[in-house]
Amino acid sequence: MSLKDYTNLTLHTDDYEINMMQTYFSKKMHNRRAVFEVFFRKMPFKNGYAVFAGLEHVIDYINNLHFTDDDIKYLAANGEYTPEFLDFLRNFKFKGTIRSAQEGDLVFNNEPIMQVEGSLAECQLVETAILNIVNYQTLVATKASRIRQSVGDDLLMEFGSRRAQETSAALWGTRAAFIGGFNSTSNVLAGQAFGIPISGTHAHSLVETFRHDYDAFKAYAETHHDCVFLVDTYDTLKSGVPNAIKVAKEMGDKINFAGVRIDSGDMAYLSKRVREMLDEAGFKDTKIIASNDLDENTITSLKMQDAKIDIWGIGTKLITAFDQPALGAVYKMVSVENADGTMRDTIKLSNNAAKVSTPGKKQVWRINKRSDGKSEGDYIALSDEDPRKQDSLYMFHPQFTYINKTLTDFEATPLLKTIYENGQQVYELPDLKAIQEHANKSLASLWPEYKRELNPQDYPVDLSKKCWENKNKLIKEVHDYVQKLNY
Amino acid sequence: MSLKDYTNLTLHTDDYEINMMQTYFSKKMHNRRAVFEVFFRKMPFKNGYAVFAGLEHVIDYINNLHFTDDDIKYLAANGEYTPEFLDFLRNFKFKGTIRSAQEGDLVFNNEPIMQVEGSLAECQLVETAILNIVNYQTLVATKASRIRQSVGDDLLMEFGSRRAQETSAALWGTRAAFIGGFNSTSNVLAGQAFGIPISGTHAHSLVETFRHDYDAFKAYAETHHDCVFLVDTYDTLKSGVPNAIKVAKEMGDKINFAGVRIDSGDMAYLSKRVREMLDEAGFKDTKIIASNDLDENTITSLKMQDAKIDIWGIGTKLITAFDQPALGAVYKMVSVENADGTMRDTIKLSNNAAKVSTPGKKQVWRINKRSDGKSEGDYIALSDEDPRKQDSLYMFHPQFTYINKTLTDFEATPLLKTIYENGQQVYELPDLKAIQEHANKSLASLWPEYKRELNPQDYPVDLSKKCWENKNKLIKEVHDYVQKLNY
Repeated sequence: MSLKDYTNLTLHTDDYEINMMQTYFSKKMHNRRAVFEVFFRKMPFKNGYAVFAGLEHVIDYINNLHFTDDDIKYLAANGEYTPEFLDFLRNFKFKGTIRSAQEGDLVFNNEPIMQVEGSLAECQLVETAILNIVNYQTLVATKASRIRQSVGDDLLMEFGSRRAQETSAALWGTRAAFIGGFNSTSNVLAGQAFGIPISGTHAHSLVETFRHDYDAFKAYAETHHDCVFLVDTYDTLKSGVPNAIKVAKEMGDKINFAGVRIDSGDMAYLSKRVREMLDEAGFKDTKIIASNDLDENTITSLKMQDAKIDIWGIGTKLITAFDQPALGAVYKMVSVENADGTMRDTIKLSNNAAKVSTPGKKQVWRINKRSDGKSEGDYIALSDEDPRKQDSLYMFHPQFTYINKTLTDFEATPLLKTIYENGQQVYELPDLKAIQEHANKSLASLWPEYKRELNPQDYPVDLSKKCWENKNKLIKEVHDYVQKLNY
Repeated sequence: MSLKDYTNLTLHTDDYEINMMQTYFSKKMHNRRAVFEVFFRKMPFKNGYAVFAGLEHVIDYINNLHFTDDDIKYLAANGEYTPEFLDFLRNFKFKGTIRSAQEGDLVFNNEPIMQVEGSLAECQLVETAILNIVNYQTLVATKASRIRQSVGDDLLMEFGSRRAQETSAALWGTRAAFIGGFNSTSNVLAGQAFGIPISGTHAHSLVETFRHDYDAFKAYAETHHDCVFLVDTYDTLKSGVPNAIKVAKEMGDKINFAGVRIDSGDMAYLSKRVREMLDEAGFKDTKIIASNDLDENTITSLKMQDAKIDIWGIGTKLITAFDQPALGAVYKMVSVENADGTMRDTIKLSNNAAKVSTPGKKQVWRINKRSDGKSEGDYIALSDEDPRKQDSLYMFHPQFTYINKTLTDFEATPLLKTIYENGQQVYELPDLKAIQEHANKSLASLWPEYKRELNPQDYPVDLSKKCWENKNKLIKEVHDYVQKLNY
């Protein structure tokens, strides 16, 4: 099995999607319209916001969607599908409409961040891959943004490829990290694929090959202009740093002694001593780079200890979203076409009230105060509503309805933009730097209370009155239906 | 950027690997021989063993290793590399020797599980991808094996694609899960790529489309022979199960009423009630399938509550290795060629004694009692040693040397097999089913004390006397070197 066989991800779907497609096809229902929405129920890392990412890979996936002859042959061998259905798959083309938050948008729990509208067949097919991509990339962009909050303007380098969960996580994860505020990656392929600045120095093995720090640093300096020396192979203070300084003095202007990197030991203590040594030797501009299982918590602690670290190399904890390695976004049907061509809103009930989905095709309106641009909350409305046409907006908590406010000084911006219209891509992805800037700008309008790392305030995600009433009506309908059953 | 651009993973490496290659090349050292070994320091999930996986993807990666013109152009634009070095890369071919544990082998902390011997240049290039692949797949195979231990012979279905960390984790993760003891996957592409049996039913959306459980189940039954109905869309006991039974009775022999699936609610309670309902209706062979954030801990608890669950659908907790999403294997140089052509063993010291690497090219010998085949421990020896030639074997703990034993009734089997010999693949991968069986057989020789989920006994991983003395000699050499430095 060679990797080239995986470039088409059409079969990267759950078996049940194909099984449902077969049922819809045989029942001649596969072209009925449906609307599905992606949302997550809990904020990742108990953060006050999430940073949406994954759209580029979703677009790449959708644009390559088609069943090859090999795919059809594989499905046929399964024995579960009719020849007519397999023919349908052979000619399958995605003709749906996708609306989505843009990468770098701030998104919150219990609101649609992506919406797929199309035939029942195509809506089901794409569920798995969309969730797989958006779940991971949004998670990492959010983790990266938390780390960014903890370092201020310090440089952040993504280092995690070797600990990522397989190859595509390394690649797309570092892109998501860039969206969340990172400055560079160690992954060369990500540099090539996405234009992310790459950065890297040398490993302990270089020192071991040359036996001594001095010889290794000297050889590196003679073959590279920008030099960051890794100083902890044997002993950071007694050997690594003095030898780095010695080489830098010998090389003079021939190199840029950009930094030293510490990868083990007590970072607070070592960084302070190393700073003194570099300063005494006249290398006040040489930076100290730290790495070693760091994340926003250890960084905050090091900052409180006044560690002299300028640049942070972040690996495992970021790229695996170590403290919460899954986001848990789901893909739920909110509306479907009846036999008579009319649309009907749908709901999934649950014993757990918080898990009940919100029916109806919706738009998320980001509400900001018009006068200062600051966030007021998100307002989820049915798609035929437009709060921009209203003079005042009544916002209330969907569960604790006594929490409410009426706004007049507001502006409403739709979160979901049209990416595909009836199968045609109508959205052009901004370049990655612009996406990062968009995330930064979005964060600027958020109150600090929503941005703090620990116990942030809940950002309001409210339903319009119409949306709220529609939901309660459907809950009652289903409840009545179940009660009337008499088995 | 289209996915097809990622099929060649040659640039999926850390920038510092290329930087070191440039230094070695300019210093005419790039063809010097070196040996690197992969090992991890801590057992994942505090388990008593790990299940090695990842070799197929590593082989695929190595077989596709070459720099394209686009790759060279990208690196040239970087400005850091000489034209001669870029020419060298253009003609680069992997000619190294790789030895590795086989997939399905049990492996332990602080022992080499893979070894790369070759030129300095090629050894460095492959570090990142090898770690990336082996770290993740070994983690998931191990997690899967833990889950397998908790369910006995029950069927295990892998369901995690939508929560996996991007696409390749979904794909290779489910393969690793199969190695660790799973029976099937929901991922159709993994079925196609690896021949894993696929399984799936339908989603809540099918019920919502047909509005009522009955109509959805009926439509599904009319279009599929094997039927598993998802019964918790509205109300498991009042609507889902009674309607499933009604449809099954109506369809009679036309379908195989294989099971019902419960995806929410109290699994212990619901499964017992559902079992009664199925049994009363005469469907004693119809299975109950449970899913909903399950792992070995929740399964053990459900078993203790006498839950009537026959088949387990496992997603998030497995595919992300949720409780420890990174293994932390490293790739360390253990030996390198001197200028005069002789080899020299290398070591990386650390303030933390447990993190010191073990120098020298090594083999891991799995020691079993000859008379009953049961495990005695692993014995790490330098590559010129062969315990099979010894009548007795002295095994001692490398730190607490008073823990020791002398064996005479033993057999020694080498763990590391040759996969590539000077660039030629000499190892043929067994098929996946055989790999799973190999893992099962390996587990059978392990004492139960090493296999229990909670607080297993430490499996002995000992060094030969020669290996141990070599390590201590090198520690002393480096220590003396650092002490003599006088900055």
